[in-house]
Amino acid sequence: MDPMNRIEQALSCAIEQSLAVAVAQAQEPGCPPRLAAAIRYSVFPGGARIRPRLTLAVACACGEDNPEIAESAAAAIELLHCASLVHDDLPCFDDAPTRRGKPSVHRAFGERLAVLAGDALIVLAFQTLARGCGAAPRRLGPLMNIIGRAVGMPSGIVAGQAWECESHVALAEYQRAKTGALFGAATMAGAEAAGHESLPWRKLGERLGEAFQVADDIRDVCSTEAELGKPIGQDKRLGRPNSVAHLGVTAAVAHLDRLIAEAVDSIPACSGAAGLKAVIQMEAQRFLPSELAQRAA
Amino acid sequence: MDPMNRIEQALSCAIEQSLAVAVAQAQEPGCPPRLAAAIRYSVFPGGARIRPRLTLAVACACGEDNPEIAESAAAAIELLHCASLVHDDLPCFDDAPTRRGKPSVHRAFGERLAVLAGDALIVLAFQTLARGCGAAPRRLGPLMNIIGRAVGMPSGIVAGQAWECESHVALAEYQRAKTGALFGAATMAGAEAAGHESLPWRKLGERLGEAFQVADDIRDVCSTEAELGKPIGQDKRLGRPNSVAHLGVTAAVAHLDRLIAEAVDSIPACSGAAGLKAVIQMEAQRFLPSELAQRAA
Repeated sequence: MDPMNRIEQALSCAIEQSLAVAVAQAQEPGCPPRLAAAIRYSVFPGGARIRPRLTLAVACACGEDNPEIAESAAAAIELLHCASLVHDDLPCFDDAPTRRGKPSVHRAFGERLAVLAGDALIVLAFQTLARGCGAAPRRLGPLMNIIGRAVGMPSGIVAGQAWECESHVALAEYQRAKTGALFGAATMAGAEAAGHESLPWRKLGERLGEAFQVADDIRDVCSTEAELGKPIGQDKRLGRPNSVAHLGVTAAVAHLDRLIAEAVDSIPACSGAAGLKAVIQMEAQRFLPSELAQRAA
Repeated sequence: MDPMNRIEQALSCAIEQSLAVAVAQAQEPGCPPRLAAAIRYSVFPGGARIRPRLTLAVACACGEDNPEIAESAAAAIELLHCASLVHDDLPCFDDAPTRRGKPSVHRAFGERLAVLAGDALIVLAFQTLARGCGAAPRRLGPLMNIIGRAVGMPSGIVAGQAWECESHVALAEYQRAKTGALFGAATMAGAEAAGHESLPWRKLGERLGEAFQVADDIRDVCSTEAELGKPIGQDKRLGRPNSVAHLGVTAAVAHLDRLIAEAVDSIPACSGAAGLKAVIQMEAQRFLPSELAQRAA
């Protein structure tokens, strides 16, 4: 199956199986309908699904023995990413009116359901992982450590967002926590899901995450709202660190290219290393839309 | 060790070990200091710690073989409870100015850090459980299922809170999701942590949870703010279901007593059943402060 289909199907299964518990166990009340709707709205239709694609690509390159494990890890990582978007868009943070080309969750469902949908997605991510590891319980603990570390304290996404509440922030630390950590988890989880040692795969994900963040910074300055499906100029408006503001456009694009090269060079030896290199280079091409790359160059 | 000390120590370890990762791995940035402070503030000093006490009491009655597992499950359950309090107090929900006798987290640290502290506590709960099951990886999956189900969709705490966003709510469903689910998980996790079948232990927790919710409803109507450490009359003010409003005080107190009796009668056969019955009866006495029980009678 095409990786994108595998991811969409794994996400859909994660949500619908969780909701279906209510139907299967007659004594249970169903899920509050607006919460269920807000959850689906938060996850579908998705963006590029870059993080879970990375997980599946690495697991495949490592010769995975049970695809269900990598699919559950990929789905967990994307659910956590969606949760972070829903909470980052809240009025107390970015107060973003749009996301992925439609109203943000709090605009569509209200602030209370946006808080709860984010919370439910975090829980669902870990439940999904536990379900996927049913046949290989010894992989669950290490996968939870990898993914939990990328999301929580002291240096996961939540910590990255919390750096915005501090008076002194170093750009590299902020970006590492806010984007690099979950990308690092995506590649490490792919290896772990296939029964490989995960640590050698961290650099690949972290460099790609840093590259993705630099590309995001460039898009925030050089793109249009129609292209992005969300407001532009957010970093300047919110006083957030931005690589283009820091380095200028030309140096930021050069930095992006260097990070992608370092990522590709870091790929550990494995049966599918050559194919993976090609996939990574193709994926990284999509970080910046081609018109934007030309415009920025 | 006294159960209360075991719980406080397990919670403190969970938080400080997570923060200490930064120090141990020199390449990691530390946790944003205000996030770390908000996390500690959300968890300490605690309330009665009723849920984790239940977990430890059941594990002990079942003759646990590895205390670390029950302690991690107890800590995970309390961390999730603390997360739900922090998010429930947010301006978009109860907008509670105080909690446990001090300013609520969003009043003390701002709304952004209250959202993030809640998120980080959810993640930390699952990380703590994974760490505690390091020596018994086969118990991690079942414990995650038990605890995840009590927190997420379709009928955990988050769903309970989401019923407040629906126009039609049945009192029993709302209370089951909002309070009963996590109490049910507390007793089931205690049994599972000791290697016993968990399902027979569900009724004990759910009945106690329902009783606790009825007691909370009585306190909300009949207590004073000084006794509770948080505002009273919240249910009426926020238009939420309340047993006293529904049944009257006398019938609500009788309902509370009946639920506690049902809980005690449901305790499955196990080596420590007699001692557990005594503990549960003693704990349940504390649901209503004695002056309040007399005043309400």
